[in-house]
This record gives sequence, structure tokens and C-alpha cells, in this order.
Amino acid sequence: MLTIPREELGQQSLALHQRYRGKLEIRSKVPLRTKRDLARAYTPGVAEVCRAIAKDPDLAYRYTLKGNTIAVVTDGSAVLGLGNIGGHAAIPVMEGKAALFREFAGIDAFPLCFEGYSTDFVDQVKNIAPVFGGINLEDIAAPKCFEVEDALQDLGIPVMHDDQHGTAIVVLAALINACRVTRRTFEDLSIVICGAGAAGYAISRLLKCIGYDPAICSTVREIVVCDTQGIIHRGRKELYRNKYKFIIADETNRSGRTGNLADAVEGADVFIGVSAPGLLTPAMIRRMNDDPIVFAMANPVPEIMPEQALSAGAAVIGTGRSDYPNQINNVLSFPGVFRGALDARATRISDEMKVAAAHAIAGAVPEPRKDRIMPVILDRSVTRSVASAVRDAAVRSGIGRKTSTQ
Amino acid sequence: MLTIPREELGQQSLALHQRYRGKLEIRSKVPLRTKRDLARAYTPGVAEVCRAIAKDPDLAYRYTLKGNTIAVVTDGSAVLGLGNIGGHAAIPVMEGKAALFREFAGIDAFPLCFEGYSTDFVDQVKNIAPVFGGINLEDIAAPKCFEVEDALQDLGIPVMHDDQHGTAIVVLAALINACRVTRRTFEDLSIVICGAGAAGYAISRLLKCIGYDPAICSTVREIVVCDTQGIIHRGRKELYRNKYKFIIADETNRSGRTGNLADAVEGADVFIGVSAPGLLTPAMIRRMNDDPIVFAMANPVPEIMPEQALSAGAAVIGTGRSDYPNQINNVLSFPGVFRGALDARATRISDEMKVAAAHAIAGAVPEPRKDRIMPVILDRSVTRSVASAVRDAAVRSGIGRKTSTQ
Repeated sequence: MLTIPREELGQQSLALHQRYRGKLEIRSKVPLRTKRDLARAYTPGVAEVCRAIAKDPDLAYRYTLKGNTIAVVTDGSAVLGLGNIGGHAAIPVMEGKAALFREFAGIDAFPLCFEGYSTDFVDQVKNIAPVFGGINLEDIAAPKCFEVEDALQDLGIPVMHDDQHGTAIVVLAALINACRVTRRTFEDLSIVICGAGAAGYAISRLLKCIGYDPAICSTVREIVVCDTQGIIHRGRKELYRNKYKFIIADETNRSGRTGNLADAVEGADVFIGVSAPGLLTPAMIRRMNDDPIVFAMANPVPEIMPEQALSAGAAVIGTGRSDYPNQINNVLSFPGVFRGALDARATRISDEMKVAAAHAIAGAVPEPRKDRIMPVILDRSVTRSVASAVRDAAVRSGIGRKTSTQ
Repeated sequence: MLTIPREELGQQSLALHQRYRGKLEIRSKVPLRTKRDLARAYTPGVAEVCRAIAKDPDLAYRYTLKGNTIAVVTDGSAVLGLGNIGGHAAIPVMEGKAALFREFAGIDAFPLCFEGYSTDFVDQVKNIAPVFGGINLEDIAAPKCFEVEDALQDLGIPVMHDDQHGTAIVVLAALINACRVTRRTFEDLSIVICGAGAAGYAISRLLKCIGYDPAICSTVREIVVCDTQGIIHRGRKELYRNKYKFIIADETNRSGRTGNLADAVEGADVFIGVSAPGLLTPAMIRRMNDDPIVFAMANPVPEIMPEQALSAGAAVIGTGRSDYPNQINNVLSFPGVFRGALDARATRISDEMKVAAAHAIAGAVPEPRKDRIMPVILDRSVTRSVASAVRDAAVRSGIGRKTSTQ
């Protein structure tokens, strides 16, 4: 339980960052003591390595950092809840993310914070790709984040926007166990997603892919997504200006419901909040189905505080916070997803890999209870399980390969 | 002395690279064991650090990796002697360079190998700059290397093309001690530079800046630069198509000499080769001034082999090779130059800083002899002396500052 007051925590964080001058260091793995060391690691010996890779660029995986290195890339346009704070102010988050990749998954991750828009961001990311075996996109505002991620899928290395898919994976994991403890099946579920940004969009789409696991029914009964204007439905003409909201309108809300969030949650089994503090009221929870599942993940202040949700009758409550039970945090997903993708040398991260990751996370809780649907975020064995499941899913679906150079 | 046959060395280098899967690793400097660790290093505590930097981007130096991190950037267009081998094949060299920065100067250096030219290279480098405190440009073909470096000088962080200035600095250092041991002063010197690429251009320009040290005369008597067409002089009309060769024509060869390399070296005191194997013959050395100084730095096979130069009467001979005396290698310069520039928080690397670096390197040889004008390249104390001299020169010339955030 984390009980430090926010202000004190902020001061501790500033002090930590100043003491270490950032969080990452780059070290040489090879000896560089003698002239012979230098001749092997650098010129003239290294020329032979360059020649080999020039003939077969794939050998970069065998002879360079590429196979174990990813970029944590942002344009600083949607950093935490702070908005578009630019490249410099985004560094502490990207450095932290990179440090987590190392600590949890043994991945060498380097933060790249782009600034300036005189050139196309997609081209820029493509052009820095050679040294990286994967790219974790981070804190990029919607809808740009969707466009950028889509445009990078042909790069030949896995590219994933963590705010979308890392979050969607842990939500799916939480939902799998919440269904277990409330004795529901996926095909019975009516789900409301509050928030149609990066996370909301990705969650709505991943929930439609759960059929990849034969033990889980492929069809959720109903998904309704709300944004600040209320329920997203095909009748909202302004959506035609936004490709991704149009896709949501097209793929969800089959019964054509209209209205606001209160209308949406009427009779719903599951509330998934990736929006803003306080949007869900106890009254709304009382109008949900019996034993409702409430994931209120706005950070740091959730859509409803867990105490309120509980007294309004919520059966299972999850948040993004470490000071309440059922922390739904993507540190459980992204390190293992990239570890597995790198291990399989996957060319992208497929829905099947994401679903496999969610099942691995859910499966890491041996006996789920209402107040324990998620593993603890510091458990490194979760990362290993996720990596293994993701690697297998990649190989199974033909987008990963096992080669002698791994 | 390095006596491994080239082929065997190549095999050893391949084996080394495969064993370690590259040469760099990225590690967390901060503890990430407990929830409290995570809350300080990452969310939610890190938000306070982001807010501080958003208000004052300069604080990135205090709170992030920026202050001690540089990028080793290439487009893969002129890698070693291998030509334009592309981004992937360039990785082993850039990784090696980054490893040397760490080992010699404690700098966190990350390799970035750009590929593709759909966007402007200069803009791309600018856009990735926020996380870096400096940029070492590497293995970029001339004349693009000059244009790129020039265009990046207003970035607010030091940007240096090592193939130019790292080389020019060690050549100047070698020349300072070669003058000592042959009892020459700079104002007496007639110098021929063979090669008008990245290194040749930078050497010709730095030799005109030596007056920054009051103990050394500011004017070399004569500099003549040769390219594959012979002596560069104002009468060569085709030079008007190449801004940088035009500058060479404008700034050197005051007496308007014409002809080929053999004509150029007639009566010269110093030959500086940054060109191709075998271009300097013993006959040419015999036509130089008494006690000629010969730096034959084509790599791995020099313009003339040291044994031949010696028997033709060269007084001092330097090469780029570790298996002969007087190795003129830029590992003596670039780590200390960037260390000093970072320590001073210099906004660029000035000629004064380069000259200071050269004097520091020359001064690291307590009693220069004809076969010992350069320090040994594995001596870390040279890096420290260079760093200190460069830092002081930056502060002295007003482009570096000492702040409490260093």
C-alpha cells in the first residue's frame, strides 16, 4: 500500500532524479582494456562484422544490439495527464519506461523524445529503426497515435502503442478473472467503455478478439463506448470526420443505443473507465446489472473511488492505483509482450499475441477472488509467463520465427 | 603491438559480436524493487519531474539522462573504408564508438543509424535531440557531412563530426610534438595535406586556428591541399560546384601552386595523408625539406609504409596503426572533447576547444621523441586532461557555463 502524500512523493521523485541525473546508463558488455580488445570490438576487426551485415542485414540480430533493443518513442503530445508538454518534459516518463523494460524483461530500451514537426513523424520513426528490434510508442495523442501505429506496421519489427494495447491487455486480463469470480461468461457480457481515446479504442477492439482462446466465447453480447458527447452510435454525423471514432461506431453498439453515460450503463455488466475523475456516480452503479464489474482507471483519480463503488454494490472493483486492491497496470503486460515478440523475432504484435498475454496475466492469479483478480505488479514471474505465451502465439500464427541467430 | 593476421582478427571479431549479441547494454541506475521505488521513478511521482521540466526545459539536464548522454549518429554513407553500406551494417561501428565513449569518458552514448531519405536528415537529427546532451556525427560522406554539421550548429548542444574534428585534433597534437622533436616552429612550416574529404578539410581549417595558444605562432607558412585531381588552387573552375573545396582553394595555397602531389611535396616540411594506400613514394619524401614529418594515416594501409618512409629520410613518422610507433588515433580526442563539452554544458564545440584538446594530448607525452610523439591510446589520463582543457576553453570563450545542475 502506497501511503505517501502526493506532494511528498513529488519531492522524493525530484530528489531521486537529481541524485542519479536520470535513470538510465549505457554500458559496454565487451572488454575494452587492451589494444587487442579494441581491435576486435572496434577497428579494424569490426569491418568484418559490417561486411557480413551489409551482405545480409538480418545478421544485425546476431551481431549487434538490435535483437534485444527497443525504442520508447514519443512526441510528447499526451504525457501522463499533463497533455502536450513537449520532448524535453517527456524524457522522465520515457526513461522510466525504458528502466522498467530492463528491470522486468531484460530488454535494452532507449527513450527517444521527438520534437518539432517539420518532417513527418512516421518517416522519422522509420528512419531511426535500423538499430531497434522493436518500437514502443508512448504518450502520443489520439487520433495521431492510431495513424502513426498503423503506418508503422510494415516496418518488419514489432511496433506497439502501449497506451492502447498494453492497457487493453491488462483490462482483458482483469475482465477474464472478474468473469470467473462473478461466474459470468463473455457471451453474456454487456460492457460500457467510458473514454474513446487511445485506451478506449484499443479496449473496444481487443474485446472483439477474445475468441482466439477457444475456452472463451468469441462474442461479447454488447459493447457500448461513450466519449464526452455521450454514447457513440452511427447517427452521430460528426464522427465521419474521425476515422477511428467511425470504426468504433461501426463495430460497437449493435442495438443502436443513444444518450449519455447514465443511459449507457443501464443494465450493463461491466464499466470500463479510461476517461476522467468522477464520471461514474453511485447512482449509475445501482442501475447496472447485478454484481457489476467496475474498472475505474482514470489516473490518479478514478471515475469513482473504490469505497463509493463498493457501497453502491459493485462486485469487483479495479483501478490503476497501487493503494487499492486489483491494480490494473500495464507494467504487467508491456515488458512481457515485447520480450516475447523479440524472442520470437515477430514482425508485428498481433491480436492473438495480445489475447495470449491477457490469458497469461489472468492465469498468474491461481485462485482469483473479488479483491484479487490481478497479480501483483512486482512479480517478475508474470513477465516470464507473458513472454512465453506471446512468443508461442507469434510462432503459432506464423509471424514469429525461431532462428539460430536468436 | 598488434600482430594478429587480419583474417583471424575478423573471425575473432565476429565471434565476439555473436557471443555478446552486440556491445552495449542499457541499465537502470535507480532501484525498482518496491512499489515505492516505482512510484518515485515512474508514475505517479514522475509527473512532478515532468511538470518542472515543462516549465524550464533546461532542467532536463538536472533530472534526466540528457546531461551525460550523446547520440552517435550516422547515415551509413561512409562507414570505415567500406563506403555506403547503409544503416544496419553501420551498427557495429556506432556501437563500438558508443562503447568507447563509456569506457574512456564515462559518457552514456547511444548509436542511431538513420536509413532512408524521404525526410531531411538535418531535421531528423534536430527532432531526436531532446534526450541528448551532444551529438557525435560519424561516417557520413563528404560533402554531406559538412552541410549536416553546419546546419546543426544552432541546436544548442555540441554537435561534432568526429571524422573531421576528432582526426584534426589528433593530427594537430602530433604536429605539435613533431615540431618539438624536429625543432621547428609552426610559422616555418610548409604543409601538404593529401586528401580533401572530411578529415582533410577539417585539418586544413584547424591548422589555421593554432594561434589560440599564445605559445604557438598563429600562422603556418603554407598549407597546400591535394585531392585526386592534384593541388587545389583557385584556378580549378570545377571547384566552384563544391562549396567546401572552394573554401579550401580560398584559404590555402597562397602562392598559387599547381600540379600533382609530387609537385606539392617539393620542399614541404610536413606530409599529412588522409587519402589512400601508397600515394606517397620514397622519391617524393626525398624531395621534401630536411627532416620531413610524414603522417600517413590512410587505414588500414597507409600512404607509405613506415619502413619505407624511414629509409627515404623521414624524421618523424606517424600512422593510424597500432602496430607502429606514433599512432595518431582519434580515440585520444573524441571522448575527452565530449566529456569536456558536457561538463561545461557547451552549446557547441569551438576551434578554441579543439586546439586546447590538441595541446592537452601533445602535453600528455612528457618527453617527446621521434618515435614517441603521441600518448598511448589506452591511457585514460589523456581523456581526463583533454576533458579538463576543453571544459576550460569552453568556459573561457563564453560558450560553456558552470551551473549548479551539472
